[in-house]
Amino acid sequence: MHRLKSLVRGEWVEGQGAHATLFNPTTEAPVAEASTAGIDMGLALAFARDHGGPALRAMTFAQRGELLRALSKAVHGAREELIELGIVNAGNTRGDAKFDVDGASGTLMAYADLGRELGDATYFAEGEPIAFGRSSRLSGQHVLVPREGVAVHVNAFNFPAWGLAEKLAGALLAGVPVLAKPATATAWMTARLVERIDEAGILPPGALSLLVGSAGDLLSRLGPQDALAFTGGSATGTKLRGGHNMLSLAVRVNVEADSLNAAVLAPDVERGSETYALFVGDVARDATQKAGQKCTAIRRVLVPASMLDAVREDLADRLSSVVVGDPASDATQMGPVATKEQLHDVRAGLDKLVSSGKVELVTGGASRPRLDPALGERGYFVAPTLLLARDARAAAVVHEHEVFGPSTTLMPYDGTASDAVAIVRLGMGGLVTSVYTDDKAWAKAAVLGLAPHHGRVYIGSAKMAGASLGPGTVLPQMVHGGPGRAGGGEELGGLRGLSLYLQRTAIQGYGPLVDSLVAGAKRV
Amino acid sequence: MHRLKSLVRGEWVEGQGAHATLFNPTTEAPVAEASTAGIDMGLALAFARDHGGPALRAMTFAQRGELLRALSKAVHGAREELIELGIVNAGNTRGDAKFDVDGASGTLMAYADLGRELGDATYFAEGEPIAFGRSSRLSGQHVLVPREGVAVHVNAFNFPAWGLAEKLAGALLAGVPVLAKPATATAWMTARLVERIDEAGILPPGALSLLVGSAGDLLSRLGPQDALAFTGGSATGTKLRGGHNMLSLAVRVNVEADSLNAAVLAPDVERGSETYALFVGDVARDATQKAGQKCTAIRRVLVPASMLDAVREDLADRLSSVVVGDPASDATQMGPVATKEQLHDVRAGLDKLVSSGKVELVTGGASRPRLDPALGERGYFVAPTLLLARDARAAAVVHEHEVFGPSTTLMPYDGTASDAVAIVRLGMGGLVTSVYTDDKAWAKAAVLGLAPHHGRVYIGSAKMAGASLGPGTVLPQMVHGGPGRAGGGEELGGLRGLSLYLQRTAIQGYGPLVDSLVAGAKRV
Repeated sequence: MHRLKSLVRGEWVEGQGAHATLFNPTTEAPVAEASTAGIDMGLALAFARDHGGPALRAMTFAQRGELLRALSKAVHGAREELIELGIVNAGNTRGDAKFDVDGASGTLMAYADLGRELGDATYFAEGEPIAFGRSSRLSGQHVLVPREGVAVHVNAFNFPAWGLAEKLAGALLAGVPVLAKPATATAWMTARLVERIDEAGILPPGALSLLVGSAGDLLSRLGPQDALAFTGGSATGTKLRGGHNMLSLAVRVNVEADSLNAAVLAPDVERGSETYALFVGDVARDATQKAGQKCTAIRRVLVPASMLDAVREDLADRLSSVVVGDPASDATQMGPVATKEQLHDVRAGLDKLVSSGKVELVTGGASRPRLDPALGERGYFVAPTLLLARDARAAAVVHEHEVFGPSTTLMPYDGTASDAVAIVRLGMGGLVTSVYTDDKAWAKAAVLGLAPHHGRVYIGSAKMAGASLGPGTVLPQMVHGGPGRAGGGEELGGLRGLSLYLQRTAIQGYGPLVDSLVAGAKRV
Repeated sequence: MHRLKSLVRGEWVEGQGAHATLFNPTTEAPVAEASTAGIDMGLALAFARDHGGPALRAMTFAQRGELLRALSKAVHGAREELIELGIVNAGNTRGDAKFDVDGASGTLMAYADLGRELGDATYFAEGEPIAFGRSSRLSGQHVLVPREGVAVHVNAFNFPAWGLAEKLAGALLAGVPVLAKPATATAWMTARLVERIDEAGILPPGALSLLVGSAGDLLSRLGPQDALAFTGGSATGTKLRGGHNMLSLAVRVNVEADSLNAAVLAPDVERGSETYALFVGDVARDATQKAGQKCTAIRRVLVPASMLDAVREDLADRLSSVVVGDPASDATQMGPVATKEQLHDVRAGLDKLVSSGKVELVTGGASRPRLDPALGERGYFVAPTLLLARDARAAAVVHEHEVFGPSTTLMPYDGTASDAVAIVRLGMGGLVTSVYTDDKAWAKAAVLGLAPHHGRVYIGSAKMAGASLGPGTVLPQMVHGGPGRAGGGEELGGLRGLSLYLQRTAIQGYGPLVDSLVAGAKRV
């Protein structure tokens, strides 16, 4: 069986002892194994801090940007190989895997371009100098400088390529080395990608380390200059950010947790209109892309009570016609979920929702879907599932428990923006909510009501329908993250994505001296 | 005895049961008492959220700024009364209390002016709109909107007026109501200030609540839209930010903890020069102002080895000549520390440093200083204390344990900026470090080396000596906070101080629609 290695202290090492097994979610066959036992996490961090950090900080933004450009090309160059691993190790259809891999190269390229724009500086001067007192002899200037620690990136199983890249881009451009720890279950794609990067000799030693397997005591070794960026379940996020050193040494922690994202159909939208088609298409795509295993997937669908039957019919039609099966086959539209654990959690979650008595099953459900008999009884398959909550407020479980699979719940509201906002808010903070309307006043009321509770609000309408990317696509120019249950974190958003890795420092002193200190900095 | 009340749900209420006693630190006489027993914290928060929040969000930045202007005037109008309470309840000299009260009114006025500049908007559009794709039909825009929760401000005992005001200013200008909980021991000044504000009828109901006494279960009731800003010891900060709801609901937490701030004398500075005088003056002022109880006070003094004897002599002279005594007397230059607990902690801390065997006592120390016999044996007095660590690196305790009183430790370094930076870094992150030099190259190396580890770096030099405010003065225009041991937080810094209370949200949709949504926003 293929043994995955970790890249620490500039070398590929194999862990010792018992190895975790990685499976093919379609066949349940073991395909690879990994272990980090025996790896000294303290030394791994020290190498990144002592070698990767100084090398990156010595480079200009433009030079760091060129690293990212080379990484983007390396990802693109490895595209076919990575897609294959997505099929074999993550149950991705080719479309799912492309979405992941192309998201990775695109994000890296966007940050490469940003680096080019930033030019020859190595740090930022933020805002204009401030003169104190009448004499102007004392002045102040804020700077943003790279922190001298390691960026530890703990990534989720659903985006082995893009998850790595989107966190990497901001850290490296800021000048901070990365130690990435992908979810073990689907780490083959990540490991191969990092191998390709390493083979290409793009990065200075220590700029990128990789742990494939358990994090061991890694996180307890983080200190005041380090940062942890985590994507995954909120229970794990809560645990990681609660580590004693995290709290007492103010290790910076960014959590991007799954959330109960919503889509809201406004009352002005008629069945059969372009905006209606966009709405149905977005909901159906989000429920089935990556078998619904996207942090931005739509979990709650709010429609005016008068539209409930129509939407139920149209969504049920769409979802029940999705071809589920072997992701290696071109005819397949949706593959299995990624792991046996995922299968168990999705089934248990669906049972939990339905057994609440407040949620009905419309199509799909927890039992194994009908599949090509050639697959036998194997594979972690779930049918695209539509649920219905006739009383949105009474169905508390729908706003609290996320089923991280091909499932979404339809519910009615009274058609007012304020009612929609009040129901969406029951989710306690989300990554993204989308609203579908061609009514400007309704859009404004909904967007401003939703904004405090979300990292992103997406407005679908007829005028942009042809150009729409859907709410599920995370763009490097816009922030990704959300308050409350979504983890309270923030990534990407162009330069904003560098903040986690920069220290803001106020410099005060004699005006001309302070000016001379930041003469070479990029002013933002 | 005077009974302090709390302002919750728009009414002044007296707590029940056993009351905490507030003392005069000079005479040890009880002067007031307070309790929050019986106050329903959930209802207190709900009133702020349901009344204060909507009222503030409905106001423009300019209108919120006018509230702050009125608050500033109220503080100034209460100045003499507040100074008196600083003397009676906090052991402040008149100068200490003025520093606190005038800091409060000045900060409020600075944010009032900022509100006026921001004008008639109620929220921010951040950055320019971003067009996606060739058609430009899809565009994105970030907004910063007020969060819909409460800003809970837990303040330290040392700045009962300024501590309230500097946190209040940013929250109210952002549009978020405040529930302030000052340290009980010195809360009389805060309580009287809030009474004056309330008597003046400046704020809408629920915009400002006050808890005088224990916080009870307040913090466990905070949710995803709330924020906690804490100033105080790092152990308490660690505990508060580790609450389960804080972690699982991503309650925003800002910690400003004390830190082992340093002052570094560069080798170009000669004894007797203007820069040297500035350095000695800053160190001495910081050791004695507020009896050394300032989070920005200089705890470590680094001088080139060749200057060690000279600086020791000059600092010892300055500190031993400080008149310690009754803060009500005009002749007194330094009063007692604020509480019996403080007295105990300072004495224990000095013992800990000296008993390490790596630190010598130069002047002052843990025993009671000589005082005016009229004071008898009462009062929480400590002498201004200079310690010496002959080997900066060997004296680990000096970089780890803060004595929060009139104490500072002198230590040698080799005169290079890199050695100074390496020693200062042993403090694991600080609020501010000051460097004293007229050598531009040395300044640059030191400042850029120190920046990642500090929220602020202050450069003292001959050309600004006449205008210098010293590193201990926190200005509303510059950020206050620091990484690592300093808590990892950030306050003030002009508009930056509003971030804790704002949600950044990416809006995506049809370009002209998105533009129209933010037409009235203030673009930043």
